[in-house]
Amino acid sequence: MGNLLEGKRALVTSVQMYMGEPIAKVLEEEGAEVISSDADLTTPNAAKELIDNAGPIDILVANLAESSWWEALVQNIDDAEWDRYFNEIVHPLMRVVRAVSPQMIERKAGKIIAITSAAPLRGIPKASGYCAARGAQNAFVRSAGIELARNNIQFNAIAQNYVENITYYPPEMLADTELVKRMVKVIPAKRLGKGEETGHLAAFLASDKSDFIVGQIIPFAGGWVTST
Amino acid sequence: MGNLLEGKRALVTSVQMYMGEPIAKVLEEEGAEVISSDADLTTPNAAKELIDNAGPIDILVANLAESSWWEALVQNIDDAEWDRYFNEIVHPLMRVVRAVSPQMIERKAGKIIAITSAAPLRGIPKASGYCAARGAQNAFVRSAGIELARNNIQFNAIAQNYVENITYYPPEMLADTELVKRMVKVIPAKRLGKGEETGHLAAFLASDKSDFIVGQIIPFAGGWVTST
Amino acid sequence: MGNLLEGKRALVTSVQMYMGEPIAKVLEEEGAEVISSDADLTTPNAAKELIDNAGPIDILVANLAESSWWEALVQNIDDAEWDRYFNEIVHPLMRVVRAVSPQMIERKAGKIIAITSAAPLRGIPKASGYCAARGAQNAFVRSAGIELARNNIQFNAIAQNYVENITYYPPEMLADTELVKRMVKVIPAKRLGKGEETGHLAAFLASDKSDFIVGQIIPFAGGWVTST
Amino acid sequence: MGNLLEGKRALVTSVQMYMGEPIAKVLEEEGAEVISSDADLTTPNAAKELIDNAGPIDILVANLAESSWWEALVQNIDDAEWDRYFNEIVHPLMRVVRAVSPQMIERKAGKIIAITSAAPLRGIPKASGYCAARGAQNAFVRSAGIELARNNIQFNAIAQNYVENITYYPPEMLADTELVKRMVKVIPAKRLGKGEETGHLAAFLASDKSDFIVGQIIPFAGGWVTST
Repeated sequence: MGNLLEGKRALVTSVQMYMGEPIAKVLEEEGAEVISSDADLTTPNAAKELIDNAGPIDILVANLAESSWWEALVQNIDDAEWDRYFNEIVHPLMRVVRAVSPQMIERKAGKIIAITSAAPLRGIPKASGYCAARGAQNAFVRSAGIELARNNIQFNAIAQNYVENITYYPPEMLADTELVKRMVKVIPAKRLGKGEETGHLAAFLASDKSDFIVGQIIPFAGGWVTST
Repeated sequence: MGNLLEGKRALVTSVQMYMGEPIAKVLEEEGAEVISSDADLTTPNAAKELIDNAGPIDILVANLAESSWWEALVQNIDDAEWDRYFNEIVHPLMRVVRAVSPQMIERKAGKIIAITSAAPLRGIPKASGYCAARGAQNAFVRSAGIELARNNIQFNAIAQNYVENITYYPPEMLADTELVKRMVKVIPAKRLGKGEETGHLAAFLASDKSDFIVGQIIPFAGGWVTST
Repeated sequence: MGNLLEGKRALVTSVQMYMGEPIAKVLEEEGAEVISSDADLTTPNAAKELIDNAGPIDILVANLAESSWWEALVQNIDDAEWDRYFNEIVHPLMRVVRAVSPQMIERKAGKIIAITSAAPLRGIPKASGYCAARGAQNAFVRSAGIELARNNIQFNAIAQNYVENITYYPPEMLADTELVKRMVKVIPAKRLGKGEETGHLAAFLASDKSDFIVGQIIPFAGGWVTST
Repeated sequence: MGNLLEGKRALVTSVQMYMGEPIAKVLEEEGAEVISSDADLTTPNAAKELIDNAGPIDILVANLAESSWWEALVQNIDDAEWDRYFNEIVHPLMRVVRAVSPQMIERKAGKIIAITSAAPLRGIPKASGYCAARGAQNAFVRSAGIELARNNIQFNAIAQNYVENITYYPPEMLADTELVKRMVKVIPAKRLGKGEETGHLAAFLASDKSDFIVGQIIPFAGGWVTST
């Protein structure tokens, strides 16, 4: 519909999970050529291969999530599950940003949007492994974003919570109206967000209109948390 | 050019100062009907009169600045100057939001964007009066934004710094290349922002695409500060 | 009991309200000579007179609260009540800090602790006037604290919530066990704070042991909010 | 000298690096029995063995640092170095907290202080690996701290920067007066912090006087950063 991203090539990672599909859809509607990848990025060279095969990328949407949810009280944390969160969420983010940076630095232009989480901004009981991994992502975005800014690369994070998505809010959960009612109680906007709303924020951050925003973790949670 | 705001009526306050003109221009380019007001809002009833005369308002841009810059070490703060900052920046923000809220609550829809400052997010020596006033604005946005969200009103702040504007960076200051060089040194983006960039962020916040963002203070300073 | 503040002279303002009494008590227990003032600080010269009469002050505890609680939805804010919050909470803070700064700058040593609030760190519906005033305080502390630091003056804020005190939690409120139960639900520490706990934090900030902490707003709310 | 921690048993990890020695010294001066460990905590069972052998622990100081500093631009990040930061800083923090939690939960009392960093609170170019690892620590503290609070366990972080210590400011660096002068320029307190000052903050957080502070990341950097 729009033309915010006309002439741009965008790569969306892990399109099959989390915010992949709705973001890919909105970027396309805004005129971008979108490469949707469902590659497993947990192996050391996967990120580099993905970028090398993709060719010139103006916009990278680093969308990552764990393969299955796990939670535990601190005293019961499982080493393998803990490691999995870092292997699936944290290290691939670094690798995909590292792989795409050289071409963006050479062109002195580029947009990177990481889809992270608002959870570490408040802390959630029984989810300290998840929060630690998402917190590592947010800290990486801030630091790498501050660094890459001088090359006219804008790297920011959408730190969302309470947005509908197939990974954290599967259909059966959204069908549980009592559960949804309880969740909505703590959201000032009094509703869950929609996937396309994350898509619109990603499209704005991917466009030339947001070039003065860098290294920023943007809370996106209907007011559940507004601080970083 | 765009049509992000087609069919919307927007009111921009204090259009003659700070970010008034560039925001009004971008909102118009995005299809909004824009009422640009240069009314003095320091008298108690001015805000209500402005809103009453304006008719239905979908988008309020609460753009406020002091009539003249003043700075002082803490021990030298002048009572009259201190009061002036609150009278010119803080109280009119509350009054204009109070005046426009009823019609937005009735329609269950509305957008309010306050143009505040990133200064209180880091603190600036010799500007504690300015920081206190802008900090009051930011705190008001967060609290009122959380409250108004349930009525489908999205109230947020653009907390900017180092963006070109006629009030804080008059032409003679921007002509001082040594001064600009010194400023740019502390900005990760390695340049000043342009007025139209604030305009684009305001347009995004004024559009239906950002309905899940409420009560938020968005740093907008090329990476100079990224926390709230 | 302790001797953390031996040989120090401390001034506690508005001792009859908010955290005045428990702080004065703890500072005395830690060996300080404490001047407890119940002077009304809303008139322009009151702060200066207080400081002039007090003589040398090593530690200023700027404890301020409104004379009576008031809350309202944004659209119903009363101008007189709004102004009262700024007159009772914000302006006296600046004036008392302004008055004490010269002697501290001359001695190149001093401690100022403002008792503010955690409310503006999260935002509270119907309390946007209160949040704006407390937010102004917090922003003033950050900015003035950054400035005064070079003179070896440490100026910080205790941004508390859910701490028992005569002003916001009068005995009849604490006697309402249902109400207390509801409050405690949102506090990770699962209890209200005690007045003397604020006193201990104030004593630490007033001591030589915390000289590297400046311009900081310290959330103190049992985990209800942990971000600034 | 003091008796803040009389009758308490404290364990300080990695005493040979970062803030280990000065913290152990201050805790002892405050009356604690201190177990100083220099055990390598990078192997999976090391943390559990350490805690099992230590017996009852009232206070855990989780002091961790990398075995050698490494920095790189984002595009040059080395996988092995990146992994090392997480293996040396992040995973041992979780493991040592996990190991000590059960005994603290059983006693319904305990203090855990993590010595992390202020770096991820602002972001530092060429240190995105370090910032990501320290950011993971901070996020873990917030989340686990919120969770453990209900058991009367207070888990907080000292997020320091510009404090003298053998790991990040070795003697030869502090002897470089030009370098120190440049560092001091960006610190509002106009000096580096001393190791014992971190010790005093740790002692306060380890004492009964700070029981209402939980899940908090306390910036400790002379005003270089004051936000979390």
